[in-house]
Amino acid sequence: MPGGYTTGMDTAYSCDLTAVRAAAARIAGAVRRTPVLTSHTLDRLAGRRVHFKCEHLQTTGAFKYRGATNAVRKLSDAEAARGVVTHSSGNHAQALALAARERGIPAYVVMPRTAPAVKKAAVEGYGGRVTECEPVLAAREAAAAKLVAETGAVLIPPFEHPDVIAGQGTAALELLEDVPDLDAVVAPVGGGGLLAGCCVAARGVSPTVRVFGAEPLGADDAARSKAAGTWLPQTGPDTIADGLLTSLGQLTWPVIRDRVEAVFTVTEEQIRSAMRLVWERMKQVIEPSAAVGVAVVLGAEFRALAGVRSVGVVLSGGNVGLDKLYW
Amino acid sequence: MPGGYTTGMDTAYSCDLTAVRAAAARIAGAVRRTPVLTSHTLDRLAGRRVHFKCEHLQTTGAFKYRGATNAVRKLSDAEAARGVVTHSSGNHAQALALAARERGIPAYVVMPRTAPAVKKAAVEGYGGRVTECEPVLAAREAAAAKLVAETGAVLIPPFEHPDVIAGQGTAALELLEDVPDLDAVVAPVGGGGLLAGCCVAARGVSPTVRVFGAEPLGADDAARSKAAGTWLPQTGPDTIADGLLTSLGQLTWPVIRDRVEAVFTVTEEQIRSAMRLVWERMKQVIEPSAAVGVAVVLGAEFRALAGVRSVGVVLSGGNVGLDKLYW
Repeated sequence: MPGGYTTGMDTAYSCDLTAVRAAAARIAGAVRRTPVLTSHTLDRLAGRRVHFKCEHLQTTGAFKYRGATNAVRKLSDAEAARGVVTHSSGNHAQALALAARERGIPAYVVMPRTAPAVKKAAVEGYGGRVTECEPVLAAREAAAAKLVAETGAVLIPPFEHPDVIAGQGTAALELLEDVPDLDAVVAPVGGGGLLAGCCVAARGVSPTVRVFGAEPLGADDAARSKAAGTWLPQTGPDTIADGLLTSLGQLTWPVIRDRVEAVFTVTEEQIRSAMRLVWERMKQVIEPSAAVGVAVVLGAEFRALAGVRSVGVVLSGGNVGLDKLYW
Repeated sequence: MPGGYTTGMDTAYSCDLTAVRAAAARIAGAVRRTPVLTSHTLDRLAGRRVHFKCEHLQTTGAFKYRGATNAVRKLSDAEAARGVVTHSSGNHAQALALAARERGIPAYVVMPRTAPAVKKAAVEGYGGRVTECEPVLAAREAAAAKLVAETGAVLIPPFEHPDVIAGQGTAALELLEDVPDLDAVVAPVGGGGLLAGCCVAARGVSPTVRVFGAEPLGADDAARSKAAGTWLPQTGPDTIADGLLTSLGQLTWPVIRDRVEAVFTVTEEQIRSAMRLVWERMKQVIEPSAAVGVAVVLGAEFRALAGVRSVGVVLSGGNVGLDKLYW
């Protein structure tokens, strides 16, 4: 573990409440304090009060701007001058590009050639320099390593970084500030940066709060890892939730293993249906990955949980192509 | 003019600040205090700070729930017992149906047979009893009059009613409370209930605030009436902004004539483009009628206005059919 992140009780983990609080102070003013919305219809369907933390309204349209901003702001001037590098399926790339531009430094972004055009355009719109590669993790890592070697820039991966995890946790810090009596928090899980950060933050400020992961059945490595008690990789993911395709990281897995109560999975049909519900009844444009958490709280398994009167759900992002609509 | 609405300076008008404040007190707890959102992208495109009053997040998905709730709550028990009647292209119908159900009284709703299926289903979902008619004003008025004669219910029209106008004005009251230093307010105008109510409220609490109407070029009776200095009807409206098809009313026109500075018109292309922008960048599902106000503040004519650093735009509703999307 890198030094400086292992204070307090969670000595084995990459991130603790102190790091999340430091991140909150570091990103204040640069990152939006997003609203928390509620809906009578969703409450009724979920069988309890649901508070939606609106990270789709975050700058760049996703929670990723929190972690990227924290990581970029924490660099020394000498480190920052050479720029930052990442490989990402989209939202982290946009976030890092903008966080870098805000600091006046270059961002080199490796993206799979299959990423949605709207995401590539957004990265370039934020001043990021895009390099395309094959849509497999090995190719992305190799291309990123090559950029680091060529430019001397600092690699800021999408989730496997303590400062990124701490930054994502600030979403839960705000949520618990706004709704202190939450019994549970649900966050979608891909690499696990959001879930691990939110878990550390939420249970740090409110030790009795229960934290759950939400995962597509088509990319259920976190649920399988929890069941096996050991880290298992994701192979051949198949889901419309394109932000959740990846395996858990080595920094996020220990938190999820020990501090997250359970990871619930949902089908593609449940994801689509939840997404439609949020668009139609809450009037919020969320992306499929964000709908996964909604689908979980609407599912029979979660509804059957006792003792959860009030749950917070992180709507993780809203970056979805709208080309086929009215225009 | 009915008695009780003609106090203060605005002796010629159907609604004044006192009535709007009374409405705010009457509907408190039943009607949502909707958030005000901002967007860096929209600010940049508008050339000034824009504050969006999110009435698409109002209960029933539109500002109409304000006026309907005020009117229904103001009825005596004897009046209320017989129920309420209206004719509406949709959002007022949903609003009245729910306001009536909240009071435990019947709502009889005359709707044009061409109204979107999603709107009819919503009215029935709120317990409204729908009667279909031909999509012309005369047929709607006749069908409503017949229902009044048969049931003894009270007619609550979509805008031509002092309590409805006062209720709609509460949106601007909240907006000015949240953003007291607004230089201008823009609201879409169909029958004029929202615009007249907001104008009375905004200029009541902040006499120097400038109030503007936003209208589709394909239903521009308010702009033409303003230009002519006399009420002119809308004939043959043609626009996707289906909440703005109707002519101004006799109760709304005097306020718009005397207290609204100007009514700006926008093309269908501008409306579609503004709607897409709000969906894509603000992640908010708004209906075309709500996009009309956005299109106005993005238009060259409005951008050229001097002395407007900060403008409030009422996003009037979000009820739009989503059947052709991802599901």
